[in-house]
Amino acid sequence: MTMTVIQFVLERLKAIGISDIFGVPGDYSFPVNDAICNDPHIRWIGCSNELNAAYAADGYARVKGVAALCTTYGVGELSALNGVAGAYAEHLPIFHLVGTPSMAIQSARAPMHHTLGNGEYDLFRRMTELVVCAYAVMTPQNVAFETERLIAEALFHRRPVYMAFPADLAEQPVLGTAEPLAAPRSNPDHLAQATTAILSALEKAETACVLPGNLIHRCGLQRTMQNIIDRSGLPFATMFMDKSVLDEHQPAFVGMYDGALMNDDVRQFVEDADCVLTIGTLMSDLNSGAFTARLDPARTITIAHHNVLCDGKTYIDVEMGDILRALAENVPHRGWKRMSAPSLGAAKGSGDDPIGVDALYPRWADFLSPGDILVAETGTASMGLGFARMPKGATFYNQTLWGSIGWATPAAVGAAIAAPGRRVVLVTGDGSHQMTATEIGLFGHLGLKPIVFVLNNNGYLIERLLCKNPEIAYNDIAPWRYSELPHALGCDGWLTARVTTCAELDAVLAKAKHAETGVYIEIVTDTYAASPLAMKLHENLKSLYKS
Amino acid sequence: MTMTVIQFVLERLKAIGISDIFGVPGDYSFPVNDAICNDPHIRWIGCSNELNAAYAADGYARVKGVAALCTTYGVGELSALNGVAGAYAEHLPIFHLVGTPSMAIQSARAPMHHTLGNGEYDLFRRMTELVVCAYAVMTPQNVAFETERLIAEALFHRRPVYMAFPADLAEQPVLGTAEPLAAPRSNPDHLAQATTAILSALEKAETACVLPGNLIHRCGLQRTMQNIIDRSGLPFATMFMDKSVLDEHQPAFVGMYDGALMNDDVRQFVEDADCVLTIGTLMSDLNSGAFTARLDPARTITIAHHNVLCDGKTYIDVEMGDILRALAENVPHRGWKRMSAPSLGAAKGSGDDPIGVDALYPRWADFLSPGDILVAETGTASMGLGFARMPKGATFYNQTLWGSIGWATPAAVGAAIAAPGRRVVLVTGDGSHQMTATEIGLFGHLGLKPIVFVLNNNGYLIERLLCKNPEIAYNDIAPWRYSELPHALGCDGWLTARVTTCAELDAVLAKAKHAETGVYIEIVTDTYAASPLAMKLHENLKSLYKS
Repeated sequence: MTMTVIQFVLERLKAIGISDIFGVPGDYSFPVNDAICNDPHIRWIGCSNELNAAYAADGYARVKGVAALCTTYGVGELSALNGVAGAYAEHLPIFHLVGTPSMAIQSARAPMHHTLGNGEYDLFRRMTELVVCAYAVMTPQNVAFETERLIAEALFHRRPVYMAFPADLAEQPVLGTAEPLAAPRSNPDHLAQATTAILSALEKAETACVLPGNLIHRCGLQRTMQNIIDRSGLPFATMFMDKSVLDEHQPAFVGMYDGALMNDDVRQFVEDADCVLTIGTLMSDLNSGAFTARLDPARTITIAHHNVLCDGKTYIDVEMGDILRALAENVPHRGWKRMSAPSLGAAKGSGDDPIGVDALYPRWADFLSPGDILVAETGTASMGLGFARMPKGATFYNQTLWGSIGWATPAAVGAAIAAPGRRVVLVTGDGSHQMTATEIGLFGHLGLKPIVFVLNNNGYLIERLLCKNPEIAYNDIAPWRYSELPHALGCDGWLTARVTTCAELDAVLAKAKHAETGVYIEIVTDTYAASPLAMKLHENLKSLYKS
Repeated sequence: MTMTVIQFVLERLKAIGISDIFGVPGDYSFPVNDAICNDPHIRWIGCSNELNAAYAADGYARVKGVAALCTTYGVGELSALNGVAGAYAEHLPIFHLVGTPSMAIQSARAPMHHTLGNGEYDLFRRMTELVVCAYAVMTPQNVAFETERLIAEALFHRRPVYMAFPADLAEQPVLGTAEPLAAPRSNPDHLAQATTAILSALEKAETACVLPGNLIHRCGLQRTMQNIIDRSGLPFATMFMDKSVLDEHQPAFVGMYDGALMNDDVRQFVEDADCVLTIGTLMSDLNSGAFTARLDPARTITIAHHNVLCDGKTYIDVEMGDILRALAENVPHRGWKRMSAPSLGAAKGSGDDPIGVDALYPRWADFLSPGDILVAETGTASMGLGFARMPKGATFYNQTLWGSIGWATPAAVGAAIAAPGRRVVLVTGDGSHQMTATEIGLFGHLGLKPIVFVLNNNGYLIERLLCKNPEIAYNDIAPWRYSELPHALGCDGWLTARVTTCAELDAVLAKAKHAETGVYIEIVTDTYAASPLAMKLHENLKSLYKS
């Protein structure tokens, strides 16, 4: 039987690993929605709104490497745009399927709902175009080759793509054929030269350090990278955005490198090394300790997504995967100098003590178990947890570059769906949580059992630290009764609590550790209980904002 | 004392009637946020997220004619985009103030948070550009004249505008001057000719009907329009998007005109008239009874925003305000034929009866009081209430063209802030409410006392009526305990209830009528209890979708 346009696309998405599609339905996208729900091998995950669906797809893509999002024309796709842009910034290939009015309607320039009423049907595609790496309007004639092109582009750039489905075309039979496109390979000469250059630079160095970046994770190259570490004996540090790209429970891990803001021992280790090998990293503001990182270009080798920079020479057309595989096969072992990674130390506080920073972050660190997925919201909480040493096999997700608050709650839903066998721990701040808290209901609806921590510090703490007057009204938020939320949103039988003292926190953490239900814990701290990195940013505003 | 760039803008916004600004703060927008909070005559209204803030600004602009929204760069402004596009579609001038990274950062192309990491700082402005009528980057040199230009554009087009404030420029002193720009006036010859043509056409007609559109409301011309009705004795009907633009409790009102779908008496009255005078209307899908309206062009006079079409001739450069004032002064009185407007009739059902359509909509209609603001969400509920006759001075708000579900809850917040002396009644569906329900907390936080009705019909009913298989999974939503929400979101002492029978509904409506607190009532109906218009759309899919 001939497949329809949308069926063809779904077949290909399934083939690359997508088994769940996040979205909100809408009349123009019914043909797409129908095809998804009628496919026994794809699950429709209806979110409470489109931005949440985009964030959930982001969390799913972090686990599975790819994700799909489905929204309706205009109102739906625009609501999701911030999440799609975030996926662009953070290198996550999300397939954004948008159902549009029929070609009949578009040709007639009819004033339909979900339009501006001016007969222009191309506007929203043009808006999205700037935050995806490729797009197409899917037709019976082009669907075969456009699907292959969009998949190839999404995987090559690790960025989102946009696929529009006019309602009258989506269910038409496919009229063309195409074969999957092979991923581009490296220029073999450049690859060989770059490999030699890197090995030679390492050979000359007495000390060295690797900075593995999150593109290794995005490209599915973690095992290859681990092979390089294992084979070479090289030590590695990670930057904030790259945290947990390799297991932190191994002797090669020297700790988190955050310029001059944190961990001065690690900074010295990294910056003093004769050779620093960065792999898919980005020296962004929050990744570089507010631009206090000082890597000497002469001693730094950069393996980027599609090229290599070594010893002042750029080797273009060298794929990260190819150069890492070449290094994994050829790097010699040496007794490279290492150091022990710092930890957050022992938890302070007990009994009726308020939950201070020294009490909270070490307890959270201790609470994590091997294999956990920790989804840490942008803000003071993730800035504290970023310096906790993750247990074996545990993963830390944070939207460090895009930094859209609200991301974490739906992203945790997406991660939980993508990794049903792993425990998902969500740590979010009160202000961030309010943005997208409706998605707590989806955990319950799907029978998922996350551990949710909401840090209630009475407003936007990170903003209090960055603005002129911390008490100014815009940092205040509505005073919710957080622990009542799961029940109101339909989560049955969850363990919920509100804790204000160390003893209460200890008691609920002990229960949560063995809970067989979803868990939702509101942790009340002082308004200004800020993690050390958050305080350091407060002290380094001029460097952060280049002012 | 010289004003700063942002202070100058705020002074001008205050002068045109803005006393509250909706938004979410962010570090790049601190200078803007600070100036707002430090101005004793502007109130900062912090919403739980940016889309909600945009919707709230929409609701505020419906009441006050203008509104302002403030978001941060990238993450914030993109989250608000759907709401800004909605304001464009619905002719609401919203000033979107966006704080951006400093020019120093932009010039350095630094990889900052809230960017795509590629050094491009112009992308998000380019995305917004397509859904605003004008935009500018505000600098000390241009702020005076750009502010005047943007105000003039926003008021001329009644559409949103975009103002970007680089963080290092916003607090610099203003370096220029400008006078407010006078609104364009009509070409006097064309105005005189159009007036004559319209009066002449009316004179020749034996029967006539006015269709006053929502642009009359947007342009603040309701009193002038009422003068025309009073002076001439002309009858009027309204279309869905235009409901309550004039008071519905006057003998000139003949009812809601929705093509062939509803009120056949009204359809005949309108379509059989010798002369139909449309004023700022739009023949969109949902405004025209799924394109079943049949106005004879030869008998239709169109007064548009900036021109007039009469008797086959277009009179360009005629402002709606000018032509309406000319008509109000010159239209003669006649004993025009009228008819009584239909009503929903008496409420059915009692005791343990389930809450059917015949029970619900008439009760809601009866519940409304003179002067109420009814914010009716897109969906089956507004499609029912659209045919209720509004009490004297009561206003019906609905986002008929853009139709973004989720709009109503935050829009009701905005309307309540804009009209502190009026009662705000929000009617929303369960699926729509889930999108933006977090904003219920803002009502409580601000001490507002709305009456909120959540119609719980177990999912997206309007979609069940429009799609192929009503039972398909994507129409289901998470089963919330709606009536627990206000307390969880910090609303103290509200009257909350969940009702499933007519007796329960009657009891709670009686209490709500005299409540001195916020009220939140979940009304449970059958999954398929659809209002008549919603059923008619179900029966007219081919006409609606031009398929």
